[in-house]
Amino acid sequence: MIQKPRGTEDLIANQVKEFFALELILRNIADLYNYQEIRTPFFELAELFLRGVGEQTDVVSKEMYIFNDKKNRQLALRPEGTAPTVRSVIENKLYINENLPLKLFYFGSMFRYERPQNGRQRQFNTFGVEVFGPKNPEIDCEIICLAVHMLKTIGIDDFKIHLNYLVDDNNRQIYIDDLKKQLKDVKLCDDCQSRLIKNPLRVLDCKVDQDKFKNIKDMKEYLSVEDKNYYNDLKRNLKNLDIKIIEDKNLVRGLDYYTGFVFEIKDKDQSTLIGGGRYDKLVKQLGDIDLPAAGWGMGIERIILNLQKQNVSLSEQSSLDAYIIGLSLKAKEFANILMFMLRSAGLKVDCDFMNRSMKSAFKQSEKNNAKNIILIGDKELKENNIIIKNQNTKEEHIVAFENIIDFMTKGE
Amino acid sequence: MIQKPRGTEDLIANQVKEFFALELILRNIADLYNYQEIRTPFFELAELFLRGVGEQTDVVSKEMYIFNDKKNRQLALRPEGTAPTVRSVIENKLYINENLPLKLFYFGSMFRYERPQNGRQRQFNTFGVEVFGPKNPEIDCEIICLAVHMLKTIGIDDFKIHLNYLVDDNNRQIYIDDLKKQLKDVKLCDDCQSRLIKNPLRVLDCKVDQDKFKNIKDMKEYLSVEDKNYYNDLKRNLKNLDIKIIEDKNLVRGLDYYTGFVFEIKDKDQSTLIGGGRYDKLVKQLGDIDLPAAGWGMGIERIILNLQKQNVSLSEQSSLDAYIIGLSLKAKEFANILMFMLRSAGLKVDCDFMNRSMKSAFKQSEKNNAKNIILIGDKELKENNIIIKNQNTKEEHIVAFENIIDFMTKGE
Repeated sequence: MIQKPRGTEDLIANQVKEFFALELILRNIADLYNYQEIRTPFFELAELFLRGVGEQTDVVSKEMYIFNDKKNRQLALRPEGTAPTVRSVIENKLYINENLPLKLFYFGSMFRYERPQNGRQRQFNTFGVEVFGPKNPEIDCEIICLAVHMLKTIGIDDFKIHLNYLVDDNNRQIYIDDLKKQLKDVKLCDDCQSRLIKNPLRVLDCKVDQDKFKNIKDMKEYLSVEDKNYYNDLKRNLKNLDIKIIEDKNLVRGLDYYTGFVFEIKDKDQSTLIGGGRYDKLVKQLGDIDLPAAGWGMGIERIILNLQKQNVSLSEQSSLDAYIIGLSLKAKEFANILMFMLRSAGLKVDCDFMNRSMKSAFKQSEKNNAKNIILIGDKELKENNIIIKNQNTKEEHIVAFENIIDFMTKGE
Repeated sequence: MIQKPRGTEDLIANQVKEFFALELILRNIADLYNYQEIRTPFFELAELFLRGVGEQTDVVSKEMYIFNDKKNRQLALRPEGTAPTVRSVIENKLYINENLPLKLFYFGSMFRYERPQNGRQRQFNTFGVEVFGPKNPEIDCEIICLAVHMLKTIGIDDFKIHLNYLVDDNNRQIYIDDLKKQLKDVKLCDDCQSRLIKNPLRVLDCKVDQDKFKNIKDMKEYLSVEDKNYYNDLKRNLKNLDIKIIEDKNLVRGLDYYTGFVFEIKDKDQSTLIGGGRYDKLVKQLGDIDLPAAGWGMGIERIILNLQKQNVSLSEQSSLDAYIIGLSLKAKEFANILMFMLRSAGLKVDCDFMNRSMKSAFKQSEKNNAKNIILIGDKELKENNIIIKNQNTKEEHIVAFENIIDFMTKGE
């Protein structure tokens, strides 16, 4: 028997309802903040991620699904949503001044060839926002505020916001030189030893060596005066909104494109629900346009996992307005017409279709959580009426054909 | 500059709103008919489509995006939604008796390496329904009725339903033998010549040779008595609901799995909006379980194209409840707090963020279709109030800080 590919999931029944309920909440809040949806393809030229996310990152070097099309173009299933969004902003010239700030959100599946584990699948879903144009603490504050607003609305209150500010430009090199000196006598894992050469900041992101960096000097001490002021303004703006943060001097995020503030929101199990930051050079790098930008991504599976642990459900239990039971062949044919009429009037109705006994059909109506049962037999067909049984009050009504819609839409 | 892959689209601005508005309508109607969503992965083991859709079909033999994962498993981006749904029904054992009829819908992207043209992209979107369990004209009628209900609700009235019933089992071989005899002296295209050997029914689907088959004998003449009765019952059920069909003796559909009725709904430009039918052997073939099934798929891009031609829009024009203009640095910082409060109260508000002049900021408020403009200057900050300007009535109100939410939620 053919099974689903490793690291993928089928979403069925209540699971998929939860996903869609979550999507609707996120969409509604994104709308309050005036963010517009963007949808990019599920695959891109692989080069986009090599250049945009960084060849040295795990995401690109180890985890991409790469394939060639028939013209031998190298394509990759998107491992993340920021590089495609930037590509689209450039290609569709969305960056014209009157569009700014360009506030976008996306929602969709991403693909990484990782070791599958709880909350980390090879196909996973991300909700993300990206803002192009402004570079100021107010907009950075807004996107963090949006993340908090979403989490709280969903029902996640127990989280911590880790914040850092990446040292950039000339000062980054000074910091890196100092970092290397400080780590000279520290025994690092193999990955970190190669990171220290290719991409030293990412050493701090290592899960293995984490504890060895506790006493590393804070990179924020190396910030320019301008950057220090920016960081303080951001913290003040957050405080104005009563958003509490933890300053996390070693937070760098796993992707290469970040330039200013970076943040992660973790739940009480240390699962990162949301992560992002400012990336002012990516648009320049991919499209030769100066366009500051910031954004974040939310791991939908991790959100769902958190809600499951809390026993919180976002979706409503479904029910039927009526379940129709036809007691003869003729009655069953009539049931189809009646269903058509009721559904056209906006009512949710269903019938058996499986030729079950009356007893089994009644069971099915319960399974479907039907508010009413409509019974039709040959006697009723002859008398041009039906029996409507309210499952809540247990009352029965005999209703003439021509009054059914009225009864069902008003009479409940 | 890196561009999107050929045959893919970025959906932005109003386009993506149309897609989502359409999705919501389809979801709502599917719910009235008591269909449940299912989401399967974007890729599957390639074998699923070879076995499920058919190795000889164009979809599988020419158009699949195939790639190997790092364990050398051959994967394929899904070219259609039925085989994955069947795989999932089997793998998740959704076929237990009390679940039947299992009425499912899916909505998502599919991938076919075709020549891109209007309404046919390499990544495209399908809404589909599949029903497992019942085999009777009533359920077949329901799924056609659902398709019609959806089209009419969306605003598409000018369509034709083409219906046929595939001859099956022993009778299919008799028909095929006769078909070959009838075509002996007809000059067919190269594709058809090879189809005639490998998969003769599909000859009738050929776009090139179409006209040569006008006088071919109707395959319905070869149906068993049982199948003839079934087909007549289906037509009667459709007539009961006033659903008009065109009998199309050469309609076979492009995929191998169909066994009973097949149908296509075409718009006045002959674009197939919806197609499907009964496929009673596919579950047996993939999972060794006897489970009759029927379903259809709707081409979302073609629906959108039809609506565009008709100048019909499904989405509402968006607007802001308020656009906030801060006239000083301090006022801008306060604007952020005010936005936070208003959004928390469910209002859609935004501000400039780009440090524009007051004149440009006013222009932005118009571009954003703001119902109100909120002005804050240093004077207002000192006096703990703001100015709210109704863009419709042009009235201005000075509102104290503590009354802003009340004013905005009730006072509009």
